[in-house]
Amino acid sequence: MKLDIAFSGCRIDRADHLRGDPQALAALMTHHARLLGMGGLDPALTADGELVWTSLAEADPEGELVFLGIEDGRACFAPVPAIANVGPPNPRLWQALAAVSSEDLAAYGVARALVGWHARHRFCAQCGGATVLTKGGWQRNCTACPAEHFPRTDPVTIMLVEHDGALLLGRQPRFPAGRFSALAGFVEPGETVEEAVAREVLEEAGVTVRDVTYVASQPWPFPSSLMIGCHAIAEGTAITIDVNELEEARWFSRPEVEAAMAGDPDALFIAPPVAAIAHQLLRWWLAR
Amino acid sequence: MKLDIAFSGCRIDRADHLRGDPQALAALMTHHARLLGMGGLDPALTADGELVWTSLAEADPEGELVFLGIEDGRACFAPVPAIANVGPPNPRLWQALAAVSSEDLAAYGVARALVGWHARHRFCAQCGGATVLTKGGWQRNCTACPAEHFPRTDPVTIMLVEHDGALLLGRQPRFPAGRFSALAGFVEPGETVEEAVAREVLEEAGVTVRDVTYVASQPWPFPSSLMIGCHAIAEGTAITIDVNELEEARWFSRPEVEAAMAGDPDALFIAPPVAAIAHQLLRWWLAR
Repeated sequence: MKLDIAFSGCRIDRADHLRGDPQALAALMTHHARLLGMGGLDPALTADGELVWTSLAEADPEGELVFLGIEDGRACFAPVPAIANVGPPNPRLWQALAAVSSEDLAAYGVARALVGWHARHRFCAQCGGATVLTKGGWQRNCTACPAEHFPRTDPVTIMLVEHDGALLLGRQPRFPAGRFSALAGFVEPGETVEEAVAREVLEEAGVTVRDVTYVASQPWPFPSSLMIGCHAIAEGTAITIDVNELEEARWFSRPEVEAAMAGDPDALFIAPPVAAIAHQLLRWWLAR
Repeated sequence: MKLDIAFSGCRIDRADHLRGDPQALAALMTHHARLLGMGGLDPALTADGELVWTSLAEADPEGELVFLGIEDGRACFAPVPAIANVGPPNPRLWQALAAVSSEDLAAYGVARALVGWHARHRFCAQCGGATVLTKGGWQRNCTACPAEHFPRTDPVTIMLVEHDGALLLGRQPRFPAGRFSALAGFVEPGETVEEAVAREVLEEAGVTVRDVTYVASQPWPFPSSLMIGCHAIAEGTAITIDVNELEEARWFSRPEVEAAMAGDPDALFIAPPVAAIAHQLLRWWLAR
């Protein structure tokens, strides 16, 4: 089945070959170029929930710009905010994004992940020197040592764990009341995707899994992850949660998952939001 | 089929719950603890190609240590080198690693990726302040601002592109003479795995692909990537290479791939090494 992966499907051509060509980039920065309207890491939106594109004349002359690529023959840029903000997105942003088209959401996601990375990487992790944006914003170079730095994307596994037709879902303390979702965790150095899935489920819920399979992936710009959605079979049902990670973990039957995904007010839990890959994994699982 | 994914299958229990417990970590640092012998980022090896484990008494009192986890009841640590080294591994290292067991290779891979990250992250990318190792080496904190930094793992797609029973393989200028391998490239912010595969193949070889599927993944500690191995179907065979990325790209028939994988001296190309996921993807493709 076709999943609706939020933040994917960006229509802007990344035009990778232009990034390393300062003359070509400069030639694109005309009055035809478009600047994405942003307030810090949040998007400016019209009353209809559309992204706001202005011109480079609106850019802060002291600020840095990231070249997103080319759409409809016009170069697209996004402004790096002056202040690094590593907090989670505010809840009102989620409400606003619900009205945004999938194409706009994808363009915003690329911009947010990139400009957020720049705002948090003004200094060289290797020597502490100041860094400067280069290659149209797809690299930063240190001004004091030869180090080159590249935008970071963190792989995260997120998994539906199944046993005898039931699914293991968990609650993080920060979730809204009633919400359960798929377990998830960062892939660590030295792990395959499959090993990371098995370790996370064992750590967080005390459940041993086998037969890990890949289902789908999603770019997640808060701040910049690659969610790798998987399915696994549990060896048993006994749960021992890691209280530092989860508040609760439970097995839900297929009808219980169906009720939650249908938004039934009597459902045992509230499903993850449509924009999250966990929601799409649950759709995939119910449709199998 | 079972693939032999080098650098996976580490037998050390990461014991995640101990990382955030300074008292427990301190209690593990006894004469029972093991220190991985390393020279910079390279492993010390016995004449039989085994990793050398010494005791914490051998550690540089000024140096930082990373807690790898627990194996056979003993805590395992690795030393952070004093100097950051971001260059590629030297060719002699590859020769030496060929004799190392898969378990030792996996333990070394985790250690190399982690200690290399520490050596390159002694300063805060957000403010330029000095950082200190914390949580047993699974985090660094800034001493001048509230920023927390985590080991980095870069997702990379690597793909077998197929058309009518033939495979598209490419040569990077840095490859040994005769070597062809799978195309590959970093996943960028705002992309799914499938989108990254399609973009890379189009950028590097001018070939449009569809039906991207996941095959297998591999941790790659040079310096710290997650290789995501995929298969895709090409829409056509016309190739236009990006000369900044590739020296050559060609279609190889199944018998031509078989000859290369068999090490036939008359083969049209030299296959990627066994330790690379590209080799395993080719094995998988031939066995289908």
